[in-house]
Amino acid sequence: MLKLFYSPNSCALASHIALQEAGADYETVRLDFRANEQRKPEYLAINPKGRVPALATDKGILTETPAILAFIAQSFPKARLAPLDDAFAFGRVQAFNSYLCATVHVAHAHRIRGYRWVDADDAASIAAMQKKVPHSVGECFDLIEREMFAGPWVMGDSYTVCDPYLFTLASWLELDGVDPARFPKVRDHRQRMAERPAVKKALAEEQG
Amino acid sequence: MLKLFYSPNSCALASHIALQEAGADYETVRLDFRANEQRKPEYLAINPKGRVPALATDKGILTETPAILAFIAQSFPKARLAPLDDAFAFGRVQAFNSYLCATVHVAHAHRIRGYRWVDADDAASIAAMQKKVPHSVGECFDLIEREMFAGPWVMGDSYTVCDPYLFTLASWLELDGVDPARFPKVRDHRQRMAERPAVKKALAEEQG
Repeated sequence: MLKLFYSPNSCALASHIALQEAGADYETVRLDFRANEQRKPEYLAINPKGRVPALATDKGILTETPAILAFIAQSFPKARLAPLDDAFAFGRVQAFNSYLCATVHVAHAHRIRGYRWVDADDAASIAAMQKKVPHSVGECFDLIEREMFAGPWVMGDSYTVCDPYLFTLASWLELDGVDPARFPKVRDHRQRMAERPAVKKALAEEQG
Repeated sequence: MLKLFYSPNSCALASHIALQEAGADYETVRLDFRANEQRKPEYLAINPKGRVPALATDKGILTETPAILAFIAQSFPKARLAPLDDAFAFGRVQAFNSYLCATVHVAHAHRIRGYRWVDADDAASIAAMQKKVPHSVGECFDLIEREMFAGPWVMGDSYTVCDPYLFTLASWLELDGVDPARFPKVRDHRQRMAERPAVKKALAEEQG
């Protein structure tokens, strides 16, 4: 059975929703980041990066949200979570998810994980990073709103694994100091996503 | 025909090498970052992110190295650049490339693109970021060396699209202030890659 390692309010929610949408048989393992469980030897044996998500499969462990999302889409083709028979369309899905992972999530991470990129005791630089987050995250969502989002789903008429990933990162906008009203398409998408049974169920499992 | 937009010494080299390895019919378009060509309207119409690589195909534009690499592997299956018939093995390839994109390249980018994450005129914070790069990039390669690199190629006996991507980012180690001798497997891989005709040809095209 698939086993998803997650922490609440993390990007692992995207994979969690995708497992629900796929109708997968899975269980979840919650890590408490406040107790630093992601740095304990037991978990580092699963994911040496000490991050979430990690997905245990019968063949081994997968990490990195874009990889896990593509794996779920390919493993449950009947759920039609990605255009699997069209390398270009699949590439567009991967490109969107890669942008979320390497640019949007990274911009966001400068608010609470600045110690990754400057000395942990350099309070001034860490504050300088935090100050820029509303601007850098806002710029990312401006580009998504203006250039990337087709609607009603990210890729257009078909719901894909891009949708739970966008939903997850867009749910951090207020915390990042960005007003979602600037991005009507993204804001409406967030609402549309929140009404899906798979999203409700994944959120209930994480918050339960 | 495929058309790759690149700038010399950028991560676009990974896609360039993969096109060579695939035996693809392609042409390249060089962007001069010193002249800020990636921010000109003509290029922003191709890639609104103002970054490289971008790959023009007969169906449209693809961006983001992990997506372009997977597209090349899927479009030229005879070149066997990824395990296309095994969702888990393909997921491992994607996970490795996602790590390079979202963690390794991002750590590196704090040396020369710090203005993305703090105010451009905040010289102290930008210097603080630069100072951390040898440590953060070194940590990434330590993890690659210890946990991820199977050998002789990234994924083991089979050469995949992970290899040109690792080669490209590993070629920045000295500039990032990291001694490659710390990572014998990665260093040997870099040498092994440099001897491949596809790599020599891509480098010659970019430096010509």
